[in-house]
Amino acid sequence: MPSSNRFGIKALAFDVFGTVVDWRSSIICEGAQWGRAKNLSVDWAAFADRWRAGYMPTLNKVRTGALPWTKLDALHRSILDELLVEFKIPGLTETEKDHWNRVWHRLAPWPDAVEGLERMRPKYVLATLSNGNLSLLTNMAKFSRLPWDAILGGDLFRHYKPDREVYLGAVDLLSVRPEELMLVAAHPYDLEAAKSHGLSTALVPRPMEYGPEKAAAAPTSCAAADVTAKDFVELAEKLG
Amino acid sequence: MPSSNRFGIKALAFDVFGTVVDWRSSIICEGAQWGRAKNLSVDWAAFADRWRAGYMPTLNKVRTGALPWTKLDALHRSILDELLVEFKIPGLTETEKDHWNRVWHRLAPWPDAVEGLERMRPKYVLATLSNGNLSLLTNMAKFSRLPWDAILGGDLFRHYKPDREVYLGAVDLLSVRPEELMLVAAHPYDLEAAKSHGLSTALVPRPMEYGPEKAAAAPTSCAAADVTAKDFVELAEKLG
Repeated sequence: MPSSNRFGIKALAFDVFGTVVDWRSSIICEGAQWGRAKNLSVDWAAFADRWRAGYMPTLNKVRTGALPWTKLDALHRSILDELLVEFKIPGLTETEKDHWNRVWHRLAPWPDAVEGLERMRPKYVLATLSNGNLSLLTNMAKFSRLPWDAILGGDLFRHYKPDREVYLGAVDLLSVRPEELMLVAAHPYDLEAAKSHGLSTALVPRPMEYGPEKAAAAPTSCAAADVTAKDFVELAEKLG
Repeated sequence: MPSSNRFGIKALAFDVFGTVVDWRSSIICEGAQWGRAKNLSVDWAAFADRWRAGYMPTLNKVRTGALPWTKLDALHRSILDELLVEFKIPGLTETEKDHWNRVWHRLAPWPDAVEGLERMRPKYVLATLSNGNLSLLTNMAKFSRLPWDAILGGDLFRHYKPDREVYLGAVDLLSVRPEELMLVAAHPYDLEAAKSHGLSTALVPRPMEYGPEKAAAAPTSCAAADVTAKDFVELAEKLG
């Protein structure tokens, strides 16, 4: 893999939730179908938002050592168990709870994602760099036909972003120098951490991640980003 | 991924060197081309065999703690440096040595491998489970179009097969029970170790791995194998 591009990069590492896949619409869509089948009256947008809102505080319990290492699947499940009480959804079997928890394995990509990845793949190694666990990310890739060359998830490092072990662990596993690895993410905190450890960085804003009402509040630029692209197809063009 | 097959498996983990790719022919072929360009007179079959013969003793130095954790790329390089003396190939630049060492990233699959993997992929998660490092295996997959869902290599576990950490580490990362993961390998030692840790096992003999003169000595059966198939296409048929 020659580094003949102007950024000098050899590999791209992608944040996944929000950057590659539209978790919110996917959960709303599957929730609505499931709710009709089960005759449930639930605000699935609120459900999705609450599930995701539980993400960072729960991750941080692992990051600070309040919880031992726990895969994201299990963290999602602990949040789900609380939400089933809060949203008054009683009586699910263990199989139903497990299936619904694994909706995070069945998230749909943003419309540009697969095409953009296919365009970048001949020239660069494409990896995930997500807080998702490897099996979650692997199942999602099969479900949504995401053409990854390698799956890197939190459980490879037993750390969650923005811990340094994740970014530098990816550099080590991909056998590149930090600046030869470009993190692609929609979230400034992720890009800032990557940049602080010497990685190259690309911002792809996803204004619809938290729904149309929050679109105006989404970041459109980031001082830590070496390049900004409106979607993965434009990113492929900018990377040459 | 339902486990509706008669073996009850959800994922397949493949040994790579010898089982998926024909390292010997690939090294002989590239060596011969390179040797003509450099006007070298080298027995490339002997060179390939000596390189591979250095593999297990060198790995074992890591396994026993005589060497600290070292990626396979670096172990291959240490053997190569000895072989360049032994085969009287002087004066290579560092770039040339590095390129030649990475011939292990450019190994060609056995003729049935890609077709068989494509047939298995809709039903099973397909992962490598190799002593190769992740970047080596990722580059090889891009080079030879091997359709892996996930790349698992020695450096994820900082252990080499047949250490238990590799087999049980794969079980953990793939989020399956041991018996739901089937190791596919051409080598009885690997199948025996996997079976001893509860994995399912498939033998795919590769009689030409060490060249036609050694074909008669290759294993054609293995007591530790749950299933034996002559190639990956037959394995796909047997797994349903």
